[in-house]
Amino acid sequence: MIVTHSGPPFEHEIRVRWADCDPARIAYTGRVACFALEAIDAWWEHAVGDDWYTMNVDHDAGVPFVHMSIDFSRPVTPRHILVCEVRLLSLGESSVRFQVSGRQFGEPCFNGEFVEAFVRAAAHVKTAIPDRYRQKLQDSLWKQKRA
Amino acid sequence: MIVTHSGPPFEHEIRVRWADCDPARIAYTGRVACFALEAIDAWWEHAVGDDWYTMNVDHDAGVPFVHMSIDFSRPVTPRHILVCEVRLLSLGESSVRFQVSGRQFGEPCFNGEFVEAFVRAAAHVKTAIPDRYRQKLQDSLWKQKRA
Amino acid sequence: MIVTHSGPPFEHEIRVRWADCDPARIAYTGRVACFALEAIDAWWEHAVGDDWYTMNVDHDAGVPFVHMSIDFSRPVTPRHILVCEVRLLSLGESSVRFQVSGRQFGEPCFNGEFVEAFVRAAAHVKTAIPDRYRQKLQDSLWKQKRA
Amino acid sequence: MIVTHSGPPFEHEIRVRWADCDPARIAYTGRVACFALEAIDAWWEHAVGDDWYTMNVDHDAGVPFVHMSIDFSRPVTPRHILVCEVRLLSLGESSVRFQVSGRQFGEPCFNGEFVEAFVRAAAHVKTAIPDRYRQKLQDSLWKQKRA
Repeated sequence: MIVTHSGPPFEHEIRVRWADCDPARIAYTGRVACFALEAIDAWWEHAVGDDWYTMNVDHDAGVPFVHMSIDFSRPVTPRHILVCEVRLLSLGESSVRFQVSGRQFGEPCFNGEFVEAFVRAAAHVKTAIPDRYRQKLQDSLWKQKRA
Repeated sequence: MIVTHSGPPFEHEIRVRWADCDPARIAYTGRVACFALEAIDAWWEHAVGDDWYTMNVDHDAGVPFVHMSIDFSRPVTPRHILVCEVRLLSLGESSVRFQVSGRQFGEPCFNGEFVEAFVRAAAHVKTAIPDRYRQKLQDSLWKQKRA
Repeated sequence: MIVTHSGPPFEHEIRVRWADCDPARIAYTGRVACFALEAIDAWWEHAVGDDWYTMNVDHDAGVPFVHMSIDFSRPVTPRHILVCEVRLLSLGESSVRFQVSGRQFGEPCFNGEFVEAFVRAAAHVKTAIPDRYRQKLQDSLWKQKRA
Repeated sequence: MIVTHSGPPFEHEIRVRWADCDPARIAYTGRVACFALEAIDAWWEHAVGDDWYTMNVDHDAGVPFVHMSIDFSRPVTPRHILVCEVRLLSLGESSVRFQVSGRQFGEPCFNGEFVEAFVRAAAHVKTAIPDRYRQKLQDSLWKQKRA
């Protein structure tokens, strides 16, 4: 049996701008963290069909972050598109772990890990990954490992 | 021999606001990262007399981040002041490592580690910690360990 | 008849930082707009006892902006505290009009007008100024005119 | 003589996200102002070939804002793409005046006017519109009026 791989990992492109930069003429550290988060929001939409807004507002599914860590290797600037590659690393009972790698013009800029944990949004109470999302997340994980 | 301690670690207070919150009614993750960074900027001003702006613009001393990691234990909201405690953990040849802990109303909200590395700002080239700052940083580290 | 004045207009101080500045080494225009908005949020808390978060979340009272205009006369920088003076200009059936003037080191930086209109927050439906707020707003307007 | 029009005015599309929204579940007013500014930055790149970053860093041409005014008619949300239409309204000796209109799903959300004035960026001194940009700006104005 032949298993063909499912294409490249998910990539989210960001046009870095003047407004994102500090007086050092590079994107401010806090903005880079926000870029990585934005890429994860885009991943959700791509992988399960709902972004954070829809998950929260329409499906009472919140996914607050319990962890983020980023290593920065190169400044992010408006000179090139920032490509953020998002990989689903693992699923827990209620948590979802991602890797986000940012690069510009082929050169790595940052690499990080992020963990979100599901809550019932209105109550802000921890919950297992809802059925609505678990199957799609497992499919996504499986396709990625196969890739 | 009597060693008197040097007072509490540096604390920076932030008034969280509506503008910082997302539809989950808590401070957005990216804003919380920015709060921790703001506390470090305030620490520099407190500990060595220059904030990031002065260091960069007046003294050609940039301190871009090479690492940040944050564990989030509780949502940050506008209900209480956010107190960010900043500790200098260690000094390298060119790097400075911090711990930043955030709490509201006595309850821990996040805890993180952050590493900045000195560069000559205009050239954006890595450099050893400049003399202007090394002694004050060492004093600050020493006072803190004694505390 | 003796009319004693009610002290100076409300002032809200902001510590401008590195993170607020763009590569021109001055606060980014969008940040300056946010500073003016922050000053209005602080005014609500000062004048009626509730900030936007409390008004919305606890009292179902939203006050989205229907207008903002700002003239910028001087760059805002981290060199000095930004003092934002907020004046209530007028009250309509459902709207509240403010003037916000920003200055640093005694020099005017910007001057603007802002109009918010009350809505029932959950329904996002326009409403007259709620009783909870009307009397305090009228008192505030009257004290100011007297000042 | 037949003058064919030059197509629709410049439109810049923005994907509004969770991170842009406040607890009212709509884009925060300060973010909407930033969206309008972003559209103007994109316009420069489109119309004259340089965005703000390139203008400032590579050509010493700063264009700080001297005025902005926005009327908000409808909330901006993540439910639809935000389309920002940017029109060059007029050119002064050193200033450039724009109209920016934002709409979602065909419905108008905001309409504003913005004025930037050229400065020599490093010196932050007012200057006439540089030759590098004047011709392209005049062409752009002319094409638009013809449209």
